[in-house]
Amino acid sequence: MKKVTILGSTGSIGRNTLEVIDRFKSKFTVVGLAAGRNIPLLQEQVSRFKPQIVSVEREEEAERLRKLVRDNSVTILSGEEGAEEVARYSENDIVISAITGIRGLKPTLAAVRSGKRLALANKESMVAAGALIQEVARTTGAEIIPVDSEHSGVFQCLMKERREGVKKVILTASGGPFFRTPLEEMKDITLEEALEHPRWKMGRKVTIDSATLMNKGLELIEARWLFGLHPQELDILIHPQSIVHSLVEWRDGSVLAQLSPTDMKIPILFALNYPHREESVLPSLNLCEVKTLEFYEVDGKKFPLISLARQALEEGDSVPVALNAANEVAVQAFLDKRIKFLDIHDIVARVVGDHQKREVLSLRDIFDVDRETRQKGWNFLEQR
Amino acid sequence: MKKVTILGSTGSIGRNTLEVIDRFKSKFTVVGLAAGRNIPLLQEQVSRFKPQIVSVEREEEAERLRKLVRDNSVTILSGEEGAEEVARYSENDIVISAITGIRGLKPTLAAVRSGKRLALANKESMVAAGALIQEVARTTGAEIIPVDSEHSGVFQCLMKERREGVKKVILTASGGPFFRTPLEEMKDITLEEALEHPRWKMGRKVTIDSATLMNKGLELIEARWLFGLHPQELDILIHPQSIVHSLVEWRDGSVLAQLSPTDMKIPILFALNYPHREESVLPSLNLCEVKTLEFYEVDGKKFPLISLARQALEEGDSVPVALNAANEVAVQAFLDKRIKFLDIHDIVARVVGDHQKREVLSLRDIFDVDRETRQKGWNFLEQR
Repeated sequence: MKKVTILGSTGSIGRNTLEVIDRFKSKFTVVGLAAGRNIPLLQEQVSRFKPQIVSVEREEEAERLRKLVRDNSVTILSGEEGAEEVARYSENDIVISAITGIRGLKPTLAAVRSGKRLALANKESMVAAGALIQEVARTTGAEIIPVDSEHSGVFQCLMKERREGVKKVILTASGGPFFRTPLEEMKDITLEEALEHPRWKMGRKVTIDSATLMNKGLELIEARWLFGLHPQELDILIHPQSIVHSLVEWRDGSVLAQLSPTDMKIPILFALNYPHREESVLPSLNLCEVKTLEFYEVDGKKFPLISLARQALEEGDSVPVALNAANEVAVQAFLDKRIKFLDIHDIVARVVGDHQKREVLSLRDIFDVDRETRQKGWNFLEQR
Repeated sequence: MKKVTILGSTGSIGRNTLEVIDRFKSKFTVVGLAAGRNIPLLQEQVSRFKPQIVSVEREEEAERLRKLVRDNSVTILSGEEGAEEVARYSENDIVISAITGIRGLKPTLAAVRSGKRLALANKESMVAAGALIQEVARTTGAEIIPVDSEHSGVFQCLMKERREGVKKVILTASGGPFFRTPLEEMKDITLEEALEHPRWKMGRKVTIDSATLMNKGLELIEARWLFGLHPQELDILIHPQSIVHSLVEWRDGSVLAQLSPTDMKIPILFALNYPHREESVLPSLNLCEVKTLEFYEVDGKKFPLISLARQALEEGDSVPVALNAANEVAVQAFLDKRIKFLDIHDIVARVVGDHQKREVLSLRDIFDVDRETRQKGWNFLEQR
């Protein structure tokens, strides 16, 4: 019986993980949950999965939850420290890191410090602090298994093969809801349209990132750190069917690709069970039904955030931290209907353009850059 | 420096292997060659690659070659025993088995008995004697690396993962030249049309097998023995672009696929270098150029040999031996313009239908079945 803790249990990945665990009750048990402010759902999860330790965003919600749960055997904490305590809880065998945004970084790092298996869905942690996380993982022996479908695919294509044989790692992008939208109509895109992803049902932030293709840019940076690759070994392909999630081209001209139906339960199942392959809870991929798999180059004119992400990938140091912070601010402003779709790029480009690259060696350095960049972003938004 | 021997050096795989070796002179040297009757080409190969031991089909050609080569340091042998001696030559590190048809079986087995690496392109050996070859390989420690592009793909998808995680192994077929030919026009197919394969440049026998799809049937049986799979774990998909060569579906719903340009030098390079990945001698796969990958079910009405092959796969014992022998006879008759395209199936179906299944435990049992079936096939052809 493996003991699982979920950081971000009320989000999309968190809920999918609990569904998977529910199907494999004899193999997994939930020991910890961390969530934000969705207390009704969290209460349900607590009463169904009976974790030993729980954390929520604010103390007032922790208080509310304590009253609702009425079970003294459950420790209910709050705040960043609460989430970190859940992440490093001594009973954990596997920690699913699925808090969205840079807020997931500290709990993610706490899990890696504890030396247990980390199933990573919080890509922003790797984008901002990939080098640091990998360094800690080397010290503690923590095993990092990606949950993002693209990175799970790369992980499976690479498996135990020697890294020096790799020529290129290619992540696919569905192209999002605006893949076929003409450039001149991009300025009229509404929030509702941007939230309608054609293939994946995900949280709001990542759905917007998928519409701008920034999601794929962040994933490139994530892949760099997850797999120890050089920026020039990383590439993107548009693949509207989202069946092929990633490809690894070997030096000898052979390419391995990972395919599956578009359901996050598949990479979650993989990350929980690796190296074992557990029977799927889902129907098989039927390629005769899909019939056609298409591949296109990325249109850099329509999706300029990809170029910004590539630059950040190549520059490294504090630049990806700034890129991520600027993007989080801009996407939040778009979700709040304060700016238009194309403004996301303008704001990120402006803020990252202003950024002075510097070394980030510690969590503190990273949060300094993150805070400063956010401040710049919000200032810029207010001046508009 | 690895010492390579090629059985079937003047055939398509043999020539491709020599091209690869020519590009990597610092890594590979040729020590042995076995060929049939193409003495002019073999002479060229001998003078260019300077093997130590060579064998040809008949003693009269060996005599001719000795006069042409005029180099006493090259041992020139003939006949089945000659090919076997080349196969088990003590200097060999890697033996490429690329003689077409059941004639490749004895030399293949001789190579496996010597315990060296076998790069296997002769699928008929595995079809007829898979159990025996694997048993010998287990005893001698011989490593068998497939060269067929589909099986090389499966090998790469499986790599070091545990076999019990496999749900299905799928081999793709281009569909051959008659994939889009209406059923009612199949009766008028000429030899010249059947020899025009849309994707692969191969020998005549395998090109006809690709046109009837029997090639894929034989490959199913080959895959059973190469990878230790159950018949129901094996499947075929039509994929006209021939970019995806095979797919492995894991129990958890994830699928790994192997892709590459259609060039036999890629799986040859892999088989020679495994587990190392040598820099390719060819341009990379460009999926944006290919743009579309399509997948279809096999049309069993147009390609009934597939069903015969599936039956043989499931029945096992002597049935695949008989199937292969009947097919070799029928394809030869078609190549000799003695029968029409659709007659290939009729003859194979009739001969295999007559066959009494029995155990085949030794090479002798296998050759008994092979000889009897051929005799029946030729008798049947003469009675028509």
